[in-house]
Amino acid sequence: MYKHETKVRVRYGETDQMGYLYYGNYALYYEVGRAEAIRDLGITYRDLEEVHFVKMPVLYLESKFLAPAHYDEEITVETSITELPTKMIRFDHKVYNPSGKLLNKGVVKLFFVDMKTNKRVSTPPYVGDKIAPYFE
Amino acid sequence: MYKHETKVRVRYGETDQMGYLYYGNYALYYEVGRAEAIRDLGITYRDLEEVHFVKMPVLYLESKFLAPAHYDEEITVETSITELPTKMIRFDHKVYNPSGKLLNKGVVKLFFVDMKTNKRVSTPPYVGDKIAPYFE
Amino acid sequence: MYKHETKVRVRYGETDQMGYLYYGNYALYYEVGRAEAIRDLGITYRDLEEVHFVKMPVLYLESKFLAPAHYDEEITVETSITELPTKMIRFDHKVYNPSGKLLNKGVVKLFFVDMKTNKRVSTPPYVGDKIAPYFE
Amino acid sequence: MYKHETKVRVRYGETDQMGYLYYGNYALYYEVGRAEAIRDLGITYRDLEEVHFVKMPVLYLESKFLAPAHYDEEITVETSITELPTKMIRFDHKVYNPSGKLLNKGVVKLFFVDMKTNKRVSTPPYVGDKIAPYFE
Repeated sequence: MYKHETKVRVRYGETDQMGYLYYGNYALYYEVGRAEAIRDLGITYRDLEEVHFVKMPVLYLESKFLAPAHYDEEITVETSITELPTKMIRFDHKVYNPSGKLLNKGVVKLFFVDMKTNKRVSTPPYVGDKIAPYFE
Repeated sequence: MYKHETKVRVRYGETDQMGYLYYGNYALYYEVGRAEAIRDLGITYRDLEEVHFVKMPVLYLESKFLAPAHYDEEITVETSITELPTKMIRFDHKVYNPSGKLLNKGVVKLFFVDMKTNKRVSTPPYVGDKIAPYFE
Repeated sequence: MYKHETKVRVRYGETDQMGYLYYGNYALYYEVGRAEAIRDLGITYRDLEEVHFVKMPVLYLESKFLAPAHYDEEITVETSITELPTKMIRFDHKVYNPSGKLLNKGVVKLFFVDMKTNKRVSTPPYVGDKIAPYFE
Repeated sequence: MYKHETKVRVRYGETDQMGYLYYGNYALYYEVGRAEAIRDLGITYRDLEEVHFVKMPVLYLESKFLAPAHYDEEITVETSITELPTKMIRFDHKVYNPSGKLLNKGVVKLFFVDMKTNKRVSTPPYVGDKIAPYFE
Protein backbone atom coordinates (compact mmCIF):
# COMPACT_ATOMS: atom_id res chain seq x y z
CA MET A 1 0.00 0.00 0.00
CA TYR A 2 0.92 3.65 -0.33
CA LYS A 3 0.34 6.30 2.32
CA HIS A 4 0.82 10.06 2.30
CA GLU A 5 0.06 12.98 4.61
CA THR A 6 -0.72 16.57 3.83
CA LYS A 7 -1.84 19.58 5.88
CA VAL A 8 -4.84 21.82 5.27
CA ARG A 9 -5.79 24.79 7.41
CA VAL A 10 -9.52 25.33 7.99
CA ARG A 11 -10.71 28.58 6.43
CA TYR A 12 -13.37 30.79 7.99
CA GLY A 13 -15.51 30.48 4.89
CA GLU A 14 -15.43 26.69 5.26
CA THR A 15 -16.97 26.76 8.73
CA ASP A 16 -20.70 26.92 9.34
CA GLN A 17 -22.66 28.67 12.07
CA MET A 18 -22.22 25.64 14.33
CA GLY A 19 -18.54 26.62 14.35
CA TYR A 20 -17.60 23.37 12.61
CA LEU A 21 -15.97 22.69 9.27
CA TYR A 22 -19.12 22.16 7.14
CA TYR A 23 -19.68 18.48 6.35
CA GLY A 24 -19.68 19.12 2.60
CA ASN A 25 -16.20 20.65 2.72
CA TYR A 26 -14.46 17.42 3.69
CA ALA A 27 -14.77 16.49 0.00
CA LEU A 28 -12.42 19.40 -0.80
CA TYR A 29 -9.94 18.17 1.82
CA TYR A 30 -10.05 14.66 0.41
CA GLU A 31 -9.41 16.21 -3.01
CA VAL A 32 -6.34 18.01 -1.66
CA GLY A 33 -5.25 14.79 0.06
CA ARG A 34 -5.42 12.68 -3.09
CA ALA A 35 -3.88 15.38 -5.32
CA GLU A 36 -0.88 15.69 -2.99
CA ALA A 37 -0.65 11.90 -2.51
CA ILE A 38 -0.32 11.30 -6.26
CA ARG A 39 1.92 14.37 -6.74
CA ASP A 40 4.31 12.73 -4.29
CA LEU A 41 4.30 9.70 -6.62
CA GLY A 42 5.16 11.87 -9.62
CA ILE A 43 1.61 12.13 -10.96
CA THR A 44 -0.36 15.36 -11.26
CA TYR A 45 -4.05 15.29 -11.91
CA ARG A 46 -3.54 18.37 -14.07
CA ASP A 47 -1.21 16.45 -16.41
CA LEU A 48 -3.58 13.50 -16.42
CA GLU A 49 -6.19 15.81 -17.96
CA GLU A 50 -3.97 18.06 -20.07
CA VAL A 51 -1.33 15.66 -21.35
CA HIS A 52 -3.01 12.26 -21.15
CA PHE A 53 -6.59 13.43 -21.82
CA VAL A 54 -8.00 11.33 -19.04
CA LYS A 55 -10.34 12.69 -16.38
CA MET A 56 -11.37 11.08 -13.11
CA PRO A 57 -15.01 11.56 -12.12
CA VAL A 58 -16.04 10.47 -8.63
CA LEU A 59 -18.10 7.30 -8.35
CA TYR A 60 -18.51 6.92 -4.62
CA LEU A 61 -17.98 8.97 -1.48
CA GLU A 62 -18.34 7.85 2.11
CA SER A 63 -17.60 9.93 5.16
CA LYS A 64 -17.79 9.16 8.88
CA PHE A 65 -17.75 12.21 11.13
CA LEU A 66 -16.26 11.40 14.52
CA ALA A 67 -15.48 14.87 15.88
CA PRO A 68 -15.62 18.39 14.45
CA ALA A 69 -12.80 20.37 12.87
CA HIS A 70 -12.67 24.05 13.80
CA TYR A 71 -11.56 27.31 12.24
CA ASP A 72 -7.83 27.82 11.82
CA GLU A 73 -6.91 24.29 12.90
CA GLU A 74 -4.16 22.80 10.79
CA ILE A 75 -5.70 19.51 9.83
CA THR A 76 -3.72 16.46 8.71
CA VAL A 77 -5.23 14.54 5.82
CA GLU A 78 -3.76 11.04 5.61
CA THR A 79 -4.43 9.45 2.24
CA SER A 80 -3.88 5.75 1.50
CA ILE A 81 -4.11 3.67 -1.63
CA THR A 82 -4.78 0.20 -0.25
CA GLU A 83 -5.46 -1.70 -3.45
CA LEU A 84 -3.92 -1.59 -6.90
CA PRO A 85 -6.23 0.50 -9.11
CA THR A 86 -7.80 -1.39 -12.02
CA LYS A 87 -11.18 -0.24 -13.35
CA MET A 88 -11.29 2.38 -10.61
CA ILE A 89 -9.05 3.92 -7.98
CA ARG A 90 -9.89 4.04 -4.31
CA PHE A 91 -8.51 6.51 -1.78
CA ASP A 92 -8.91 6.10 1.97
CA HIS A 93 -8.63 9.22 4.07
CA LYS A 94 -8.16 9.83 7.76
CA VAL A 95 -8.44 13.39 9.00
CA TYR A 96 -6.73 14.42 12.25
CA ASN A 97 -6.69 17.66 14.22
CA PRO A 98 -3.44 19.18 15.56
CA SER A 99 -3.70 17.15 18.80
CA GLY A 100 -3.76 13.96 16.74
CA LYS A 101 -7.44 13.25 17.34
CA LEU A 102 -9.13 11.34 14.51
CA LEU A 103 -11.95 13.57 13.25
CA ASN A 104 -13.14 11.91 10.09
CA LYS A 105 -12.70 8.83 7.93
CA GLY A 106 -13.44 8.96 4.23
CA VAL A 107 -13.45 6.77 1.16
CA VAL A 108 -13.51 8.15 -2.38
CA LYS A 109 -13.64 5.96 -5.48
CA LEU A 110 -13.03 7.47 -8.90
CA PHE A 111 -12.97 6.03 -12.41
CA PHE A 112 -11.13 7.03 -15.56
CA VAL A 113 -12.67 8.57 -18.69
CA ASP A 114 -10.86 9.07 -21.99
CA MET A 115 -11.60 12.74 -22.77
CA LYS A 116 -11.40 12.16 -26.54
CA THR A 117 -13.95 9.35 -26.73
CA ASN A 118 -15.78 10.19 -23.47
CA LYS A 119 -15.64 6.45 -22.72
CA ARG A 120 -14.64 4.78 -19.49
CA VAL A 121 -11.16 3.24 -19.52
CA SER A 122 -8.98 1.24 -17.12
CA THR A 123 -6.27 2.88 -15.03
CA PRO A 124 -3.94 4.59 -17.53
CA PRO A 125 -0.21 3.65 -17.39
CA TYR A 126 0.66 7.24 -16.36
CA VAL A 127 -1.10 6.47 -13.07
CA GLY A 128 -0.78 2.70 -12.76
CA ASP A 129 2.97 2.51 -13.38
CA LYS A 130 3.73 4.82 -10.47
CA ILE A 131 1.45 2.99 -8.04
CA ALA A 132 2.27 -0.62 -9.02
CA PRO A 133 5.65 -0.74 -7.22
CA TYR A 134 3.82 -0.31 -3.89
CA PHE A 135 1.87 -3.51 -4.49
CA GLU A 136 4.69 -5.82 -5.50
CA MET B 1 -42.25 6.63 5.52
CA TYR B 2 -42.22 10.25 4.49
CA LYS B 3 -41.11 11.53 1.09
CA HIS B 4 -40.64 15.06 -0.25
CA GLU B 5 -39.30 16.66 -3.43
CA THR B 6 -37.60 19.99 -3.93
CA LYS B 7 -35.86 21.68 -6.88
CA VAL B 8 -32.36 23.16 -6.96
CA ARG B 9 -30.80 24.83 -9.98
CA VAL B 10 -27.09 24.16 -10.53
CA ARG B 11 -25.04 27.36 -10.17
CA TYR B 12 -21.99 28.12 -12.30
CA GLY B 13 -19.84 28.41 -9.18
CA GLU B 14 -20.91 24.89 -8.19
CA THR B 15 -19.56 23.31 -11.38
CA ASP B 16 -15.93 22.31 -11.82
CA GLN B 17 -13.72 22.42 -14.90
CA MET B 18 -15.02 19.01 -15.95
CA GLY B 19 -18.33 20.79 -16.50
CA TYR B 20 -19.97 18.73 -13.75
CA LEU B 21 -21.56 19.71 -10.47
CA TYR B 22 -18.55 19.21 -8.15
CA TYR B 23 -18.90 16.05 -6.08
CA GLY B 24 -18.56 17.95 -2.81
CA ASN B 25 -21.54 20.17 -3.61
CA TYR B 26 -24.10 17.34 -3.44
CA ALA B 27 -23.84 17.75 0.34
CA LEU B 28 -25.34 21.25 -0.07
CA TYR B 29 -28.17 19.84 -2.18
CA TYR B 30 -28.89 17.13 0.40
CA GLU B 31 -28.96 19.91 3.00
CA VAL B 32 -31.54 21.82 0.94
CA GLY B 33 -33.47 18.58 0.44
CA ARG B 34 -33.69 17.76 4.15
CA ALA B 35 -34.39 21.39 5.18
CA GLU B 36 -37.32 21.57 2.76
CA ALA B 37 -38.53 18.07 3.66
CA ILE B 38 -38.81 18.94 7.34
CA ARG B 39 -40.18 22.43 6.60
CA ASP B 40 -43.02 20.69 4.79
CA LEU B 41 -43.68 18.78 8.04
CA GLY B 42 -43.79 22.04 10.02
CA ILE B 43 -40.24 21.86 11.35
CA THR B 44 -37.52 24.36 10.56
CA TYR B 45 -33.94 23.61 11.36
CA ARG B 46 -33.55 27.28 12.29
CA ASP B 47 -36.17 26.97 15.03
CA LEU B 48 -34.62 23.72 16.18
CA GLU B 49 -31.45 25.70 16.93
CA GLU B 50 -32.91 29.04 17.99
CA VAL B 51 -36.03 27.98 19.91
CA HIS B 52 -35.25 24.43 21.01
CA PHE B 53 -31.47 24.83 21.40
CA VAL B 54 -30.78 21.59 19.61
CA LYS B 55 -28.31 21.29 16.75
CA MET B 56 -27.88 18.41 14.33
CA PRO B 57 -24.29 17.57 13.41
CA VAL B 58 -23.74 15.10 10.60
CA LEU B 59 -22.56 11.64 11.59
CA TYR B 60 -22.43 9.85 8.25
CA LEU B 61 -22.56 10.70 4.56
CA GLU B 62 -22.67 8.33 1.64
CA SER B 63 -23.01 9.29 -1.99
CA LYS B 64 -23.20 7.22 -5.18
CA PHE B 65 -22.57 9.18 -8.37
CA LEU B 66 -24.38 7.62 -11.32
CA ALA B 67 -24.33 10.44 -13.87
CA PRO B 68 -23.24 14.09 -13.78
CA ALA B 69 -25.40 17.14 -13.16
CA HIS B 70 -24.64 20.16 -15.34
CA TYR B 71 -24.81 23.92 -15.09
CA ASP B 72 -28.27 25.47 -15.07
CA GLU B 73 -30.10 22.14 -14.85
CA GLU B 74 -33.03 22.24 -12.50
CA ILE B 75 -32.33 19.24 -10.34
CA THR B 76 -34.94 17.38 -8.30
CA VAL B 77 -33.84 16.31 -4.85
CA GLU B 78 -36.13 13.61 -3.47
CA THR B 79 -35.73 13.21 0.29
CA SER B 80 -37.14 10.28 2.25
CA ILE B 81 -37.29 9.47 5.92
CA THR B 82 -37.60 5.69 5.92
CA GLU B 83 -37.25 4.96 9.60
CA LEU B 84 -38.55 6.68 12.72
CA PRO B 85 -35.69 8.76 14.14
CA THR B 86 -34.50 7.70 17.59
CA LYS B 87 -30.89 8.36 18.58
CA MET B 88 -30.23 9.70 15.12
CA ILE B 89 -32.16 10.72 12.01
CA ARG B 90 -31.48 9.30 8.57
CA PHE B 91 -32.32 10.98 5.27
CA ASP B 92 -32.22 9.17 1.93
CA HIS B 93 -31.80 11.30 -1.16
CA LYS B 94 -32.28 10.65 -4.84
CA VAL B 95 -31.18 13.35 -7.25
CA TYR B 96 -32.72 13.54 -10.74
CA ASN B 97 -32.03 15.75 -13.73
CA PRO B 98 -34.86 17.47 -15.67
CA SER B 99 -35.28 14.40 -17.97
CA GLY B 100 -35.91 12.27 -14.89
CA LYS B 101 -32.57 10.49 -15.03
CA LEU B 102 -31.29 9.36 -11.64
CA LEU B 103 -27.93 11.10 -11.12
CA ASN B 104 -27.07 10.43 -7.52
CA LYS B 105 -28.16 8.55 -4.43
CA GLY B 106 -27.23 9.80 -0.99
CA VAL B 107 -27.62 8.93 2.66
CA VAL B 108 -27.05 11.42 5.47
CA LYS B 109 -27.33 10.51 9.15
CA LEU B 110 -27.38 13.24 11.77
CA PHE B 111 -27.62 13.21 15.54
CA PHE B 112 -28.99 15.70 18.06
CA VAL B 113 -26.98 17.82 20.48
CA ASP B 114 -28.44 19.91 23.29
CA MET B 115 -26.77 23.28 22.75
CA LYS B 116 -26.93 24.16 26.46
CA THR B 117 -25.15 21.05 27.76
CA ASN B 118 -23.33 20.21 24.51
CA LYS B 119 -24.45 16.60 25.13
CA ARG B 120 -25.98 14.20 22.68
CA VAL B 121 -29.73 13.70 23.10
CA SER B 122 -32.46 11.60 21.48
CA THR B 123 -34.76 13.01 18.81
CA PRO B 124 -36.46 16.01 20.42
CA PRO B 125 -40.30 16.06 20.45
CA TYR B 126 -40.31 19.13 18.16
CA VAL B 127 -38.95 16.82 15.45
CA GLY B 128 -40.21 13.40 16.50
CA ASP B 129 -43.86 14.38 16.96
CA LYS B 130 -44.16 15.64 13.40
CA ILE B 131 -42.54 12.55 11.88
CA ALA B 132 -44.17 9.87 14.05
CA PRO B 133 -47.56 9.94 12.25
CA TYR B 134 -45.85 8.68 9.08
CA PHE B 135 -44.72 5.55 10.89
CA GLU B 136 -47.99 4.52 12.53
CA MET C 1 -33.15 50.20 -17.59
CA TYR C 2 -34.18 46.67 -16.78
CA LYS C 3 -34.84 45.33 -13.28
CA HIS C 4 -35.61 41.85 -12.00
CA GLU C 5 -36.02 40.16 -8.63
CA THR C 6 -35.29 36.61 -7.56
CA LYS C 7 -35.26 34.77 -4.23
CA VAL C 8 -32.44 32.72 -2.73
CA ARG C 9 -32.61 30.92 0.60
CA VAL C 10 -29.42 30.98 2.70
CA ARG C 11 -28.00 27.47 3.12
CA TYR C 12 -26.32 26.27 6.32
CA GLY C 13 -23.16 25.50 4.37
CA GLU C 14 -23.07 29.12 3.18
CA THR C 15 -22.95 30.55 6.70
CA ASP C 16 -19.75 30.94 8.68
CA GLN C 17 -19.11 30.58 12.39
CA MET C 18 -20.12 34.21 12.91
CA GLY C 19 -23.60 33.03 11.94
CA TYR C 20 -23.55 35.23 8.84
CA LEU C 21 -23.74 34.41 5.16
CA TYR C 22 -19.99 34.30 4.35
CA TYR C 23 -18.87 37.40 2.45
CA GLY C 24 -17.52 35.33 -0.45
CA ASN C 25 -20.90 33.71 -1.06
CA TYR C 26 -22.61 36.90 -2.18
CA ALA C 27 -20.86 36.33 -5.51
CA LEU C 28 -22.96 33.16 -5.91
CA TYR C 29 -26.13 35.10 -5.14
CA TYR C 30 -25.23 37.78 -7.68
CA GLU C 31 -24.65 34.96 -10.17
CA VAL C 32 -28.14 33.60 -9.48
CA GLY C 33 -29.53 37.13 -9.73
CA ARG C 34 -28.01 37.84 -13.13
CA ALA C 35 -28.81 34.36 -14.51
CA GLU C 36 -32.48 34.76 -13.57
CA ALA C 37 -32.57 38.37 -14.76
CA ILE C 38 -31.41 37.43 -18.24
CA ARG C 39 -33.54 34.25 -18.28
CA ASP C 40 -36.54 36.51 -17.79
CA LEU C 41 -35.42 38.38 -20.93
CA GLY C 42 -35.26 35.13 -22.91
CA ILE C 43 -31.50 34.65 -22.59
CA THR C 44 -29.82 31.74 -20.83
CA TYR C 45 -26.17 31.85 -20.00
CA ARG C 46 -26.07 28.14 -20.79
CA ASP C 47 -27.20 28.77 -24.39
CA LEU C 48 -24.77 31.66 -24.66
CA GLU C 49 -21.96 29.16 -24.06
CA GLU C 50 -23.38 26.08 -25.78
CA VAL C 51 -25.16 27.58 -28.79
CA HIS C 52 -23.41 30.89 -29.33
CA PHE C 53 -19.95 29.85 -28.08
CA VAL C 54 -19.53 32.98 -26.04
CA LYS C 55 -18.47 32.97 -22.41
CA MET C 56 -18.62 35.82 -19.92
CA PRO C 57 -15.68 36.08 -17.53
CA VAL C 58 -15.96 38.52 -14.66
CA LEU C 59 -13.90 41.70 -14.89
CA TYR C 60 -14.90 43.55 -11.76
CA LEU C 61 -16.73 42.88 -8.52
CA GLU C 62 -17.67 45.34 -5.83
CA SER C 63 -19.67 44.60 -2.74
CA LYS C 64 -20.83 46.78 0.16
CA PHE C 65 -21.95 44.87 3.24
CA LEU C 66 -24.55 46.83 5.20
CA ALA C 67 -26.05 44.13 7.41
CA PRO C 68 -25.67 40.36 7.67
CA ALA C 69 -27.84 37.69 6.06
CA HIS C 70 -28.61 34.69 8.24
CA TYR C 71 -29.30 31.00 7.81
CA ASP C 72 -32.63 30.08 6.26
CA GLU C 73 -33.59 33.64 5.41
CA GLU C 74 -35.22 33.96 2.03
CA ILE C 75 -33.17 36.71 0.51
CA THR C 76 -34.33 38.90 -2.38
CA VAL C 77 -31.70 39.63 -4.99
CA GLU C 78 -32.69 42.62 -7.11
CA THR C 79 -30.69 42.81 -10.33
CA SER C 80 -30.61 45.85 -12.59
CA ILE C 81 -29.05 46.55 -15.95
CA THR C 82 -28.68 50.32 -15.92
CA GLU C 83 -26.69 50.85 -19.09
CA LEU C 84 -26.81 49.26 -22.53
CA PRO C 85 -24.03 46.66 -22.68
CA THR C 86 -21.33 47.37 -25.27
CA LYS C 87 -17.80 46.05 -24.66
CA MET C 88 -18.93 44.77 -21.28
CA ILE C 89 -22.11 44.22 -19.33
CA ARG C 90 -22.75 45.63 -15.88
CA PHE C 91 -25.17 44.24 -13.31
CA ASP C 92 -26.18 46.13 -10.19
CA HIS C 93 -27.47 44.08 -7.27
CA LYS C 94 -29.35 44.95 -4.13
CA VAL C 95 -29.84 42.19 -1.59
CA TYR C 96 -32.72 42.40 0.91
CA ASN C 97 -33.75 40.21 3.84
CA PRO C 98 -37.38 39.09 4.32
CA SER C 99 -38.20 42.26 6.33
CA GLY C 100 -37.12 44.36 3.36
CA LYS C 101 -33.88 45.53 4.98
CA LEU C 102 -31.12 46.30 2.48
CA LEU C 103 -28.22 44.00 3.37
CA ASN C 104 -25.81 44.37 0.52
CA LYS C 105 -25.14 46.30 -2.67
CA GLY C 106 -23.08 44.77 -5.45
CA VAL C 107 -21.74 45.57 -8.88
CA VAL C 108 -20.46 42.90 -11.28
CA LYS C 109 -18.99 43.71 -14.70
CA LEU C 110 -18.39 40.93 -17.20
CA PHE C 111 -17.00 40.86 -20.72
CA PHE C 112 -17.58 38.55 -23.67
CA VAL C 113 -15.13 36.03 -25.10
CA ASP C 114 -15.60 34.11 -28.35
CA MET C 115 -14.91 30.52 -27.27
CA LYS C 116 -13.63 29.52 -30.73
CA THR C 117 -10.98 32.22 -31.02
CA ASN C 118 -10.60 32.90 -27.28
CA LYS C 119 -10.71 36.62 -28.19
CA ARG C 120 -12.70 39.33 -26.51
CA VAL C 121 -15.78 40.45 -28.47
CA SER C 122 -18.52 43.04 -28.07
CA THR C 123 -21.94 42.14 -26.67
CA PRO C 124 -23.30 39.40 -28.98
CA PRO C 125 -26.70 40.02 -30.63
CA TYR C 126 -28.19 37.07 -28.69
CA VAL C 127 -27.74 39.22 -25.57
CA GLY C 128 -27.86 42.78 -26.92
CA ASP C 129 -31.05 42.39 -28.92
CA LYS C 130 -33.05 41.36 -25.87
CA ILE C 131 -31.73 44.17 -23.69
CA ALA C 132 -31.81 47.01 -26.25
CA PRO C 133 -35.60 47.57 -26.05
CA TYR C 134 -35.20 48.64 -22.41
CA PHE C 135 -32.92 51.49 -23.45
CA GLU C 136 -34.94 52.98 -26.28
CA MET D 1 3.22 49.74 5.59
CA TYR D 2 3.28 46.03 6.15
CA LYS D 3 3.44 43.42 3.38
CA HIS D 4 3.24 39.63 3.48
CA GLU D 5 3.04 36.80 0.94
CA THR D 6 1.40 33.42 1.19
CA LYS D 7 0.76 30.57 -1.27
CA VAL D 8 -2.55 28.90 -2.07
CA ARG D 9 -2.98 26.05 -4.52
CA VAL D 10 -6.16 26.14 -6.66
CA ARG D 11 -8.45 23.19 -5.88
CA TYR D 12 -10.51 21.40 -8.50
CA GLY D 13 -13.67 22.20 -6.59
CA GLU D 14 -12.80 25.91 -6.75
CA THR D 15 -12.71 25.98 -10.55
CA ASP D 16 -15.81 26.41 -12.68
CA GLN D 17 -16.69 24.91 -16.05
CA MET D 18 -14.82 27.73 -17.79
CA GLY D 19 -11.71 26.15 -16.29
CA TYR D 20 -11.07 29.26 -14.18
CA LEU D 21 -10.91 29.78 -10.44
CA TYR D 22 -14.52 30.91 -9.83
CA TYR D 23 -14.73 34.66 -9.22
CA GLY D 24 -16.42 34.18 -5.85
CA ASN D 25 -13.55 32.08 -4.53
CA TYR D 26 -11.04 34.94 -4.54
CA ALA D 27 -12.72 36.05 -1.32
CA LEU D 28 -11.46 32.80 0.28
CA TYR D 29 -7.94 33.49 -0.97
CA TYR D 30 -8.03 37.04 0.39
CA GLU D 31 -9.18 35.53 3.70
CA VAL D 32 -6.17 33.17 3.70
CA GLY D 33 -3.94 36.09 2.74
CA ARG D 34 -5.06 38.33 5.60
CA ALA D 35 -5.09 35.48 8.16
CA GLU D 36 -1.49 34.60 7.32
CA ALA D 37 -0.45 38.25 7.13
CA ILE D 38 -1.64 38.94 10.67
CA ARG D 39 -0.38 35.55 11.94
CA ASP D 40 3.05 36.67 10.82
CA LEU D 41 2.58 39.75 13.02
CA GLY D 42 1.69 37.57 16.01
CA ILE D 43 -2.08 37.98 15.71
CA THR D 44 -4.49 35.14 15.03
CA TYR D 45 -8.04 35.85 14.03
CA ARG D 46 -9.03 32.82 16.11
CA ASP D 47 -7.63 34.40 19.28
CA LEU D 48 -9.22 37.70 18.40
CA GLU D 49 -12.60 35.93 18.59
CA GLU D 50 -11.90 33.42 21.35
CA VAL D 51 -9.68 35.39 23.71
CA HIS D 52 -10.51 39.01 22.95
CA PHE D 53 -14.19 38.50 22.01
CA VAL D 54 -13.90 40.70 18.96
CA LYS D 55 -15.08 39.65 15.51
CA MET D 56 -14.33 41.29 12.18
CA PRO D 57 -17.22 41.41 9.73
CA VAL D 58 -16.47 42.51 6.19
CA LEU D 59 -17.64 45.97 5.20
CA TYR D 60 -16.37 46.27 1.66
CA LEU D 61 -14.93 44.05 -1.04
CA GLU D 62 -13.52 45.08 -4.40
CA SER D 63 -11.92 42.79 -6.92
CA LYS D 64 -10.38 43.43 -10.34
CA PHE D 65 -9.92 40.33 -12.48
CA LEU D 66 -7.03 40.74 -14.89
CA ALA D 67 -6.33 37.15 -15.93
CA PRO D 68 -7.67 33.75 -14.83
CA ALA D 69 -6.16 31.39 -12.27
CA HIS D 70 -6.28 27.70 -13.19
CA TYR D 71 -6.52 24.36 -11.44
CA ASP D 72 -3.45 23.25 -9.49
CA GLU D 73 -1.59 26.52 -9.94
CA GLU D 74 0.23 27.60 -6.82
CA ILE D 75 -0.99 31.15 -6.47
CA THR D 76 0.81 33.86 -4.50
CA VAL D 77 -1.42 36.12 -2.46
CA GLU D 78 0.39 39.32 -1.50
CA THR D 79 -1.36 41.13 1.33
CA SER D 80 -0.57 44.70 2.35
CA ILE D 81 -1.75 46.91 5.16
CA THR D 82 -1.16 50.39 3.78
CA GLU D 83 -2.80 52.50 6.45
CA LEU D 84 -2.92 52.26 10.22
CA PRO D 85 -6.26 50.69 11.16
CA THR D 86 -8.58 52.93 13.18
CA LYS D 87 -12.34 52.40 12.92
CA MET D 88 -11.72 49.75 10.29
CA ILE D 89 -8.88 47.76 8.82
CA ARG D 90 -8.08 47.64 5.13
CA PHE D 91 -6.20 44.86 3.34
CA ASP D 92 -4.89 45.20 -0.20
CA HIS D 93 -4.29 41.99 -2.12
CA LYS D 94 -2.40 41.18 -5.27
CA VAL D 95 -2.74 37.66 -6.65
CA TYR D 96 -0.01 36.25 -8.90
CA ASN D 97 0.30 32.96 -10.79
CA PRO D 98 3.51 30.87 -10.66
CA SER D 99 4.99 32.79 -13.64
CA GLY D 100 4.60 36.01 -11.67
CA LYS D 101 1.71 37.32 -13.76
CA LEU D 102 -0.65 39.58 -11.85
CA LEU D 103 -4.09 37.93 -11.99
CA ASN D 104 -6.19 39.88 -9.58
CA LYS D 105 -6.20 42.93 -7.32
CA GLY D 106 -8.44 43.07 -4.29
CA VAL D 107 -9.39 45.33 -1.44
CA VAL D 108 -11.18 44.13 1.69
CA LYS D 109 -12.25 46.42 4.52
CA LEU D 110 -13.40 44.97 7.82
CA PHE D 111 -14.59 46.50 11.06
CA PHE D 112 -14.48 45.33 14.67
CA VAL D 113 -17.43 44.19 16.77
CA ASP D 114 -17.30 43.50 20.51
CA MET D 115 -18.93 40.07 20.74
CA LYS D 116 -20.24 40.73 24.26
CA THR D 117 -22.10 43.93 23.45
CA ASN D 118 -22.51 43.29 19.71
CA LYS D 119 -21.42 46.92 19.23
CA ARG D 120 -18.88 48.28 16.80
CA VAL D 121 -15.54 49.21 18.37
CA SER D 122 -12.24 50.70 17.21
CA THR D 123 -9.22 48.56 16.40
CA PRO D 124 -8.49 46.58 19.58
CA PRO D 125 -4.97 46.87 21.07
CA TYR D 126 -4.35 43.15 20.36
CA VAL D 127 -4.41 44.09 16.68
CA GLY D 128 -3.34 47.72 16.67
CA ASP D 129 -0.24 47.31 18.84
CA LYS D 130 1.28 44.79 16.44
CA ILE D 131 0.61 46.88 13.35
CA ALA D 132 1.52 50.33 14.72
CA PRO D 133 5.33 49.82 14.52
CA TYR D 134 5.02 49.57 10.72
CA PHE D 135 3.56 53.06 10.57
CA GLU D 136 6.06 54.91 12.78
